Amino acid sequence: MAPWDSLIRFAAADGTEYWAALPLETVPAVGLTVQGYSTIDELESGSAGAAVTVSKLLAPVPATDIPIICIGLNYRNHANEASLPIPATPPMWYKPAASLAEPESTIELPLQAQKSFPDFEGELTLVLRDTIKNIQPSEAASHILGYTVGNDLTARFFQRSCGGQYTYAKGFDRFAPLGPRLVHPSLVDTSANGRITTKVNGRVVQNSPFDFIFPIDELLSFLSQGTTIPAGTAILTGTPAGVGWFQDPKTQLQEGDVVEVEVKPIGVLRNTIAYEK
Amino acid sequence: MAPWDSLIRFAAADGTEYWAALPLETVPAVGLTVQGYSTIDELESGSAGAAVTVSKLLAPVPATDIPIICIGLNYRNHANEASLPIPATPPMWYKPAASLAEPESTIELPLQAQKSFPDFEGELTLVLRDTIKNIQPSEAASHILGYTVGNDLTARFFQRSCGGQYTYAKGFDRFAPLGPRLVHPSLVDTSANGRITTKVNGRVVQNSPFDFIFPIDELLSFLSQGTTIPAGTAILTGTPAGVGWFQDPKTQLQEGDVVEVEVKPIGVLRNTIAYEK
Repeated sequence: MAPWDSLIRFAAADGTEYWAALPLETVPAVGLTVQGYSTIDELESGSAGAAVTVSKLLAPVPATDIPIICIGLNYRNHANEASLPIPATPPMWYKPAASLAEPESTIELPLQAQKSFPDFEGELTLVLRDTIKNIQPSEAASHILGYTVGNDLTARFFQRSCGGQYTYAKGFDRFAPLGPRLVHPSLVDTSANGRITTKVNGRVVQNSPFDFIFPIDELLSFLSQGTTIPAGTAILTGTPAGVGWFQDPKTQLQEGDVVEVEVKPIGVLRNTIAYEK
Repeated sequence: MAPWDSLIRFAAADGTEYWAALPLETVPAVGLTVQGYSTIDELESGSAGAAVTVSKLLAPVPATDIPIICIGLNYRNHANEASLPIPATPPMWYKPAASLAEPESTIELPLQAQKSFPDFEGELTLVLRDTIKNIQPSEAASHILGYTVGNDLTARFFQRSCGGQYTYAKGFDRFAPLGPRLVHPSLVDTSANGRITTKVNGRVVQNSPFDFIFPIDELLSFLSQGTTIPAGTAILTGTPAGVGWFQDPKTQLQEGDVVEVEVKPIGVLRNTIAYEK
C-alpha cells in the first residue's frame, strides 16, 4: 500500500521548506495547514511532523540543483502536426537546474525569449526516487517516486536557429514549472486511458490521451544505459499536439496569459506569463 | 599580472583533493611535489599551502556537480566535412555532471556506446570563474577562470536516431574528459593563431587553427541571455574537421586506442579507450 497518496513541497511564511502528504481530494493551495516534514524520508518514517501553513507552493522535487530531462516527439499526434518522422530512439535533452519554477507562479520571460516565439508544452512528468544506471524496463516502475505535471516552455525560433538543437530554446531560467504536487505512481494511469489537457486563458489548446511512442518503462531503461541519472531527477515525458507554433494562426504566449496544464488526479499546473522589462 | 600561470587539480595518495599552481614549462604529471590548496581562493590568497605529491590528476574544474556545456558546429572546416549549413545561432547542449572524467585516465565505454560508433572530438575548453547572466560580449573575458582541453566523446549513431538531438549521444558517464590543467586566459591565444591537434595512437587526425564561427566573447554573451550559468561551468567550444565519422574509411574508437588532444601551452589531454564488459 502506498504510504501517501500525494505530496506537496511548500514554503511556510518564514521561508522554511517542507514536504507534506495530501489526500487526493484536497487541492494543493496556499493557506492549507498540514503536517510538515523536512524530507520525504522523514515523512515516510511515520514521525509526527509539525503543523505548518502553506505560504507558497514549490515544485514537488527532492533535488533542485540537478538538470531536468526532457523527452521530445513522444506523441504521434505531435509528430504529425510537426511533420516529423517517428524517431528510432527517444529525443532527449537537459534543462539546467535554474529552469525549475513553482506552480501558481508568474514566469517572467527574458527578452531573448520574448522576441523568439515563447510557447507552452504541457507534459506528464515523473520524478525518480533512486539513482539509476543500466536498468531494465521491468525495473523502471520501482524507481519512480511519483508523477507531477510540467510545462516545457520553449522559445520556438531557437529550436531551428541553433543547428536544430533544442537545449537553448528550452533552457532559460524558470522555463520548467512543475507541480502542483507529486502523486504516487500507483494512482496515476499512464496508459492511453490517461489524458493531458492544456488551456491558455481558459481555452483548451491541448487535449490528448497519453499516446506515448516510448512508454515510460522503456524510456527510463533507455536513458539509463551507460548513464547515471541522479535520484530526484524530473523527467518530462513529451507533449501532445496543440502547441501555439502549430495553431492556425501561430500564437505565441503573451504578457498576462494564464497557462494551465492538467492531468487527473494530479491536478492543474497553473502559471501566469509576464514579459521581463 | 596573473596570480598564476596554470593550475592543476589532483588527488594525493590518501585521496584528498588539492589545487596547485604550476609554471607553464612544467608538464602536469603524477609524482610532482607541489604546494597544495583546498580551493583556488585559498591558493590566490597567498597563504602557504602544504607540500603534497600528485598521485592522480583530476579534471581542472572547481565544480564537479553541474552540467558541462558543449558547443556544436563552431569550425567552418567541421561544418564543411559534415555538409551542414552554418547555423544562425550557436548549437549548444549539456553533458551531465557524471560525464566528467580525468586526464590520463581510461574511459570505459558502456555497451550502449560501443555498438554506436564511439568517436572523439578535441576541443578548446573554458571554465567560468563567476556565475553569469545577461552579460555583454565585452564583459565575457573578465569571467573566464582559464582554459583547458576537452574531448567531447560521442556515440555517433545516436546523434541521428534521437530525432537529431545530440544530448544522448554525448551524455554517457565519463564522456567529458578535461585536462591536464587550467591555463590563465592571458596566456592562451584563442585567435586564429591558436591551434588544436588530436592524435589517435600517435596519428594526427585533427589539426586546425582556431576557426571559431562564434568567438568566445559572443558565445558567452549568447549563452547567458536569460539563463544563469553557474561559476565553475566548463564550456567545450566545438571541434574542427577530422573526427572518425568523417574519415575515409569511417573509423570508430577501439579498445586500447589512445586519444591525445593538444592545445599549446595548455598541454595534452590523454585518455585510453576501453570497452566495458
